[in-house]
Amino acid sequence: MDHDSRALSRGRRTGHVLTGASALFLASYAVRVLANDLPQRWLNLCLAVTVLCWAVFVLDYAMRWRLSGLGLKFVRVHWLDTIVLVLPLLRPLCVVQIHDAMQRGHDRPRLSLHARVAVYAGLSVTLLGFTGALAVYQHEHTAPNASIVTFGDAVWWTCATLATVGYGDVAPVTPMGRTIAVLLMACGLALLGTVTGSFGSWLIQVFMREDEQRPPES
Amino acid sequence: MDHDSRALSRGRRTGHVLTGASALFLASYAVRVLANDLPQRWLNLCLAVTVLCWAVFVLDYAMRWRLSGLGLKFVRVHWLDTIVLVLPLLRPLCVVQIHDAMQRGHDRPRLSLHARVAVYAGLSVTLLGFTGALAVYQHEHTAPNASIVTFGDAVWWTCATLATVGYGDVAPVTPMGRTIAVLLMACGLALLGTVTGSFGSWLIQVFMREDEQRPPES
Amino acid sequence: MDHDSRALSRGRRTGHVLTGASALFLASYAVRVLANDLPQRWLNLCLAVTVLCWAVFVLDYAMRWRLSGLGLKFVRVHWLDTIVLVLPLLRPLCVVQIHDAMQRGHDRPRLSLHARVAVYAGLSVTLLGFTGALAVYQHEHTAPNASIVTFGDAVWWTCATLATVGYGDVAPVTPMGRTIAVLLMACGLALLGTVTGSFGSWLIQVFMREDEQRPPES
Amino acid sequence: MDHDSRALSRGRRTGHVLTGASALFLASYAVRVLANDLPQRWLNLCLAVTVLCWAVFVLDYAMRWRLSGLGLKFVRVHWLDTIVLVLPLLRPLCVVQIHDAMQRGHDRPRLSLHARVAVYAGLSVTLLGFTGALAVYQHEHTAPNASIVTFGDAVWWTCATLATVGYGDVAPVTPMGRTIAVLLMACGLALLGTVTGSFGSWLIQVFMREDEQRPPES
Repeated sequence: MDHDSRALSRGRRTGHVLTGASALFLASYAVRVLANDLPQRWLNLCLAVTVLCWAVFVLDYAMRWRLSGLGLKFVRVHWLDTIVLVLPLLRPLCVVQIHDAMQRGHDRPRLSLHARVAVYAGLSVTLLGFTGALAVYQHEHTAPNASIVTFGDAVWWTCATLATVGYGDVAPVTPMGRTIAVLLMACGLALLGTVTGSFGSWLIQVFMREDEQRPPES
Repeated sequence: MDHDSRALSRGRRTGHVLTGASALFLASYAVRVLANDLPQRWLNLCLAVTVLCWAVFVLDYAMRWRLSGLGLKFVRVHWLDTIVLVLPLLRPLCVVQIHDAMQRGHDRPRLSLHARVAVYAGLSVTLLGFTGALAVYQHEHTAPNASIVTFGDAVWWTCATLATVGYGDVAPVTPMGRTIAVLLMACGLALLGTVTGSFGSWLIQVFMREDEQRPPES
Repeated sequence: MDHDSRALSRGRRTGHVLTGASALFLASYAVRVLANDLPQRWLNLCLAVTVLCWAVFVLDYAMRWRLSGLGLKFVRVHWLDTIVLVLPLLRPLCVVQIHDAMQRGHDRPRLSLHARVAVYAGLSVTLLGFTGALAVYQHEHTAPNASIVTFGDAVWWTCATLATVGYGDVAPVTPMGRTIAVLLMACGLALLGTVTGSFGSWLIQVFMREDEQRPPES
Repeated sequence: MDHDSRALSRGRRTGHVLTGASALFLASYAVRVLANDLPQRWLNLCLAVTVLCWAVFVLDYAMRWRLSGLGLKFVRVHWLDTIVLVLPLLRPLCVVQIHDAMQRGHDRPRLSLHARVAVYAGLSVTLLGFTGALAVYQHEHTAPNASIVTFGDAVWWTCATLATVGYGDVAPVTPMGRTIAVLLMACGLALLGTVTGSFGSWLIQVFMREDEQRPPES
């Protein structure tokens, strides 16, 4: 077993651990937010799992920083990782990247470029939307005059926001909820614009290919 | 008559039947939703026609599955057909495809690539919007506190949603209505983005062609 | 004076007349809608001017039809002109085309392709938005429960609609007002998408050119 | 020191002064709008600084006009500068340009074309949004029936507007506030469309490069 394949195998193992930690992070956060009527020690357990997963992320970040030998420049070069470390709720942006890297590890991608970009952006947006709905629900549903009072409302609000429809029948009213909403808009709209653009390019490619494959009229 | 032309002829006949079944499906569904005050046996007849058309779709899907010899892989390769089989209200996405295939059967397309993509996406969106307005109206107009109480409201809501304007003067309030709304947004926005993009490309092409055709100044 | 330059000169004269008629049409329509408190005979005069201008459009359409020798095919080939003849409030789409043709008559365009497309679409959208605001105001401001009660409201509503923001603080409530609104969305969004796309392409071109013009570092 | 490097050095110095004046202009305007409860002479000082900075802009414009030797044509060629002179709140559009020019003065840009366009448009939009929130807050928060009563509301409204979500829970009600809102939409949407488009192109480039860099499977 030579150096390259060992590094690849280690990278894949790290990827598995990080993906698992991300899933656990999201799951424990979701349980803590949604299942408010659990006994206190279960909620504490969820909080512990959340913090533990965060610790795993910090450890991974620190190790990669040390191995890179870049010093403070590392923060700027890997700006996405840095943001995700500080705001772990944006982690969905990375999870898909890791999953993508692992998938590419064992075989050639079977999707065309535009389709892959659309799938990547679509998955990110779905995960991000779910996390955003959780976070907004957590900060809003106890506020006075809140219009987002159930998790269903929060999901509905998230969908209407990401589609830029914005009915306004439900909308965040607390400063914290609005801050999360602005973050969600900024990330979601750029990604969704990419989905739409890639989908359009893919559709045009499909029509083009059909033109070429059709036999000439006799 | 050789094998190829016979397959083509059979494909065209299947296309005619499927298009007819789709039109019948949509029409009977529309009558059942909109004409609530019909006598019960007419409503039952509509329901029977709807179910019969669905059976035709299932039959077509099953036959193509068996002929393909792909086994379970068929579900994944023909994912669009699978989705449309489960959610027949998304069928408009296919109807246009079939019509397009038939039209291409007897002569070369006369429209440029961008214009054809725009027409395809525009037709899909129109049919999808009509179906979405029907489905939302069906689930909303009897709900307490509903703001969508007439079919006109539903159509107005659909237009405002597909254009991503979203005034919020009328909006779905039931979980089912909101689920349909999210599906409508997801399909509609991708398709409308394609219409807009193709329209822009086509307009730029028109301006380009005019530049070329203009005789040089004397 | 040879045949070509005479045809060009006649085309330019027709263009001048049509542009004048369009401006008169819009102006007389605007006066009739906005200046409700004028004495009746002034309103009648406005109506007469509006109808007269429409007659000019019909005459121009009929003459071009006869000269083309296309028969009923003319309606399909010149579909934009046909739509504009039936719905003269969509005429702004053509006015710019005519103005553009005249401008191209006497010198080479000085703007790049993307800038010209953006200017064309931007002008069309502005005129269309003004006409749409007029038409919506005319049908809405007397309706019970109307939220669009002044022309200022109508303009504000038009801007919010064309930008797809759609606050919903003012929105049409009558069937006629909503029909006009849907037409406005359909035309406006396609054109505005073109403006945005062309603006982006133009901005990227500007940045590209700057890169090329910069002298290499010494 | 030859002519070219002296002109470059003078240009850089002018750039520094203009950037400083722009920052001062924005800061003094913000203080005057937000800190209403300051003693009167502080508010007067802010007003004086604002006017002084404007005078600097006018001086710079006048000098460039005289040096260009273009006469009245200057107003049309440098239309962006002219607009910004009349509506100094749109100055953020220029500040970034100046900063960009200075940055390019001492080394090659390190970002790819699409990333640079996205950064430029993103920075402009952020500054423009902040200025727009300030201006709308100034004209709205004292109006009767105003829904924008705190600066937080104004920022939330600006974000929802620029993202074209437009909930409508807060919206301007005064003619002046609505005029500023329309200006903000027009500038913001074109720039944000550019950000989205450039982000999509950049993402596709990243995916493309990854495909190329991956070693072929063994």
